[in-house]
Amino acid sequence: MDQKPLRISLDDSPEALRAALSQLREQHKHFVNSELALDLTRGKPATAQLDLSNALLGPIDSHSAGTDLRNYGGLDGLPAAKALCAELLGIAAETAQARLLVGGNSSLSLMHAVVSFANFLGLAGQAWSDEKNQTGQATKILCPSPGYDRHFAICEQLGIEMLVMPLTGQGPDMDALEKAAQDHSVKGIWCVPRFSNPSGEVYSDATVARLAALPKIAANNFLVLWDNAYALHAFHDKAPALASIEHEADKAGTLNQVVQFGSTSKMTFAGSGISYLASSETTKQAFAKHLAKVSIGPDKLNQQRHVNLLKDAATAKAHMRRHAEILAPKFNAVLQALDAGLAGCNMGDWSEPEGGYFVSFDARPGLANKIVALAAEAGVKLTPAGATFPYGRDPEDRNIRLAPSFPALEEVQRAAEVFVNCVQIASLEDALSR
Amino acid sequence: MDQKPLRISLDDSPEALRAALSQLREQHKHFVNSELALDLTRGKPATAQLDLSNALLGPIDSHSAGTDLRNYGGLDGLPAAKALCAELLGIAAETAQARLLVGGNSSLSLMHAVVSFANFLGLAGQAWSDEKNQTGQATKILCPSPGYDRHFAICEQLGIEMLVMPLTGQGPDMDALEKAAQDHSVKGIWCVPRFSNPSGEVYSDATVARLAALPKIAANNFLVLWDNAYALHAFHDKAPALASIEHEADKAGTLNQVVQFGSTSKMTFAGSGISYLASSETTKQAFAKHLAKVSIGPDKLNQQRHVNLLKDAATAKAHMRRHAEILAPKFNAVLQALDAGLAGCNMGDWSEPEGGYFVSFDARPGLANKIVALAAEAGVKLTPAGATFPYGRDPEDRNIRLAPSFPALEEVQRAAEVFVNCVQIASLEDALSR
Repeated sequence: MDQKPLRISLDDSPEALRAALSQLREQHKHFVNSELALDLTRGKPATAQLDLSNALLGPIDSHSAGTDLRNYGGLDGLPAAKALCAELLGIAAETAQARLLVGGNSSLSLMHAVVSFANFLGLAGQAWSDEKNQTGQATKILCPSPGYDRHFAICEQLGIEMLVMPLTGQGPDMDALEKAAQDHSVKGIWCVPRFSNPSGEVYSDATVARLAALPKIAANNFLVLWDNAYALHAFHDKAPALASIEHEADKAGTLNQVVQFGSTSKMTFAGSGISYLASSETTKQAFAKHLAKVSIGPDKLNQQRHVNLLKDAATAKAHMRRHAEILAPKFNAVLQALDAGLAGCNMGDWSEPEGGYFVSFDARPGLANKIVALAAEAGVKLTPAGATFPYGRDPEDRNIRLAPSFPALEEVQRAAEVFVNCVQIASLEDALSR
Repeated sequence: MDQKPLRISLDDSPEALRAALSQLREQHKHFVNSELALDLTRGKPATAQLDLSNALLGPIDSHSAGTDLRNYGGLDGLPAAKALCAELLGIAAETAQARLLVGGNSSLSLMHAVVSFANFLGLAGQAWSDEKNQTGQATKILCPSPGYDRHFAICEQLGIEMLVMPLTGQGPDMDALEKAAQDHSVKGIWCVPRFSNPSGEVYSDATVARLAALPKIAANNFLVLWDNAYALHAFHDKAPALASIEHEADKAGTLNQVVQFGSTSKMTFAGSGISYLASSETTKQAFAKHLAKVSIGPDKLNQQRHVNLLKDAATAKAHMRRHAEILAPKFNAVLQALDAGLAGCNMGDWSEPEGGYFVSFDARPGLANKIVALAAEAGVKLTPAGATFPYGRDPEDRNIRLAPSFPALEEVQRAAEVFVNCVQIASLEDALSR
């Protein structure tokens, strides 16, 4: 930043606001003229993060797993990869081989498959679409929001109605969920339980236990879709831990209806990682039976590359600390800029995540689209406003997701300053127009 | 073989048959006691074939394509991989980028996605399942048989009715197809046009042209599913070529309804290859739009590995000649054994493929299951009888698929001798019981 950020609060006098607005517009013009090209749209690892896994680019022994990794076979994935991924998900080693499956380079594909199979073919219980045809009631999925746009896109594609559910900072509002799940046309819930996308919150132990028990209230083919995408993605060692939903579901007797997902996309190479899924043995087998019609098996060579690199949970955690060293300063830069320009100014609230890939910003109602448009003018691309809500519709037009992982640190700093300026302009214009 | 095969014809006298049967049973006992463990079930490349592509196991430059191959992005696949796969499929270079998409390690997954999208969401025209709900008529797909069991498994999983269609040795019986396709609840046809699985036949130019024109007769959301799995898999350079269905469909104006598939599974590593799909630009885009909900993009590193290895059609063809050098002797061994033991004996007919992965054997009606069971007793695993027909039901219980690619040459020889012995026993027992 060329100068200290201008600080102005909506509680200041209209004269002060008008004077500030004119200065802020000058600053905006300056940004526009600088022809920036910064992109905070997606949770994409930076080059330096990818470099941490460059051992994956090296040569590999095709027989290192005691089998010919080059040939067909092994729908469930390599046993060694299953053991590794169980550690990454926190699945007990003794049940890992029975309960877990390791796939290709995309956990999104596993999630799409689970929802498609459950909807059209039946996974844990009757196919949702068959039931819909019988009852005439739309199939519904609970969507704690703001949430992950690609989860919502799956539902939209398959014609599954999405119900927006509130988040509390400790995970979804369980009272609201437990009420909603009593409607047995509700067939599932999307969860990103640690460092939620985008709110960054970590589900509390009590929330995990209540979510694990939810299938007892809900329809008998209801699924808890547990996308543990950021299980090991803390910025520091004191970040809140996540309780084991497997443990809670085992206790509650609901494991057939809980499906956990994860991937190494943000641990190794975003486009060339491995993905995994775990549930009860019964549900995993039902999934594998359907999957056998889709694929003869995953890329075992790439699974073995990951076994060689990540080895076990301890090695993976050490690896993730190196990711944190790169990510944490970028998140700090965003938070410092927000703090310097906006703290106590009544123009919005934001998350202070201890891990994950996002800062979630809530502007004053009605301003998110405007802020994103202003930022675009100034050369800072943000995730489209609304994208964090089902159907791309933020009912209050408030939420903006900031994804600072990919650009270089100084670019993140600059983008955050532009963002603060845009929030200030939109907020002042709004206040002065009333 | 320890001795020359016994030759006996069903046209010989009952006394001769009885004498021969007793000798054949002795021989069978000998095989059983040898505790063989031979497997001719699947079209799986042999170790020596996999070795031809061991350059894929070497190190790779993550920026060799002018982009960071490690990160997210590029749903369609790498431009260089698209150019390569276009050459492998025989797609014109100038339209390749628009018409082709390169995926992960499994063309089966692409085929499953195409049929799923077409059925549930609509691909080229209205979704088949919506139409089924409106008309009450079952969705149907034409299945030239014997055919590929995994094609049939997709239909069965999705509740699509399969209609068995005859093959002629030059591809499917087009008169029968053109008649069947007039029923507009028929929504597609499976084709393996070169070295068909398992019959080995290559579709004639006239057949390709009539297949390309089939959508003009058929429903407007009918798809020609063109699984060109063995496009480059000839045993010698004089094997029949396949006409370009893209060219014919362009002429007929039907390209929106023709989807071609291929993969390198039987060119490089069976489990770690790349797959590809091509259609018109419109249908490819419709496919990509649906696929974007399933995946953020394919493994670009593995695509680049394949670009480095296979380079272009000429390099790929040279590579496939080396495959042929390994495969052809195994096919010759099977054909020699069949010829030595069964030619002119009235116990069955078989294909003499010039490429691909299979020999198709038609026993006398009602004997396929029995022959497969006898072979299993003698330690030779064969594809289950019936597997080459929809629903696993060969109406005449005749067809047996032999897949000699994986075992070593001497194992193939031994397995073929066992097979001939089993055919003889089953045929003689049957003849003598009448």
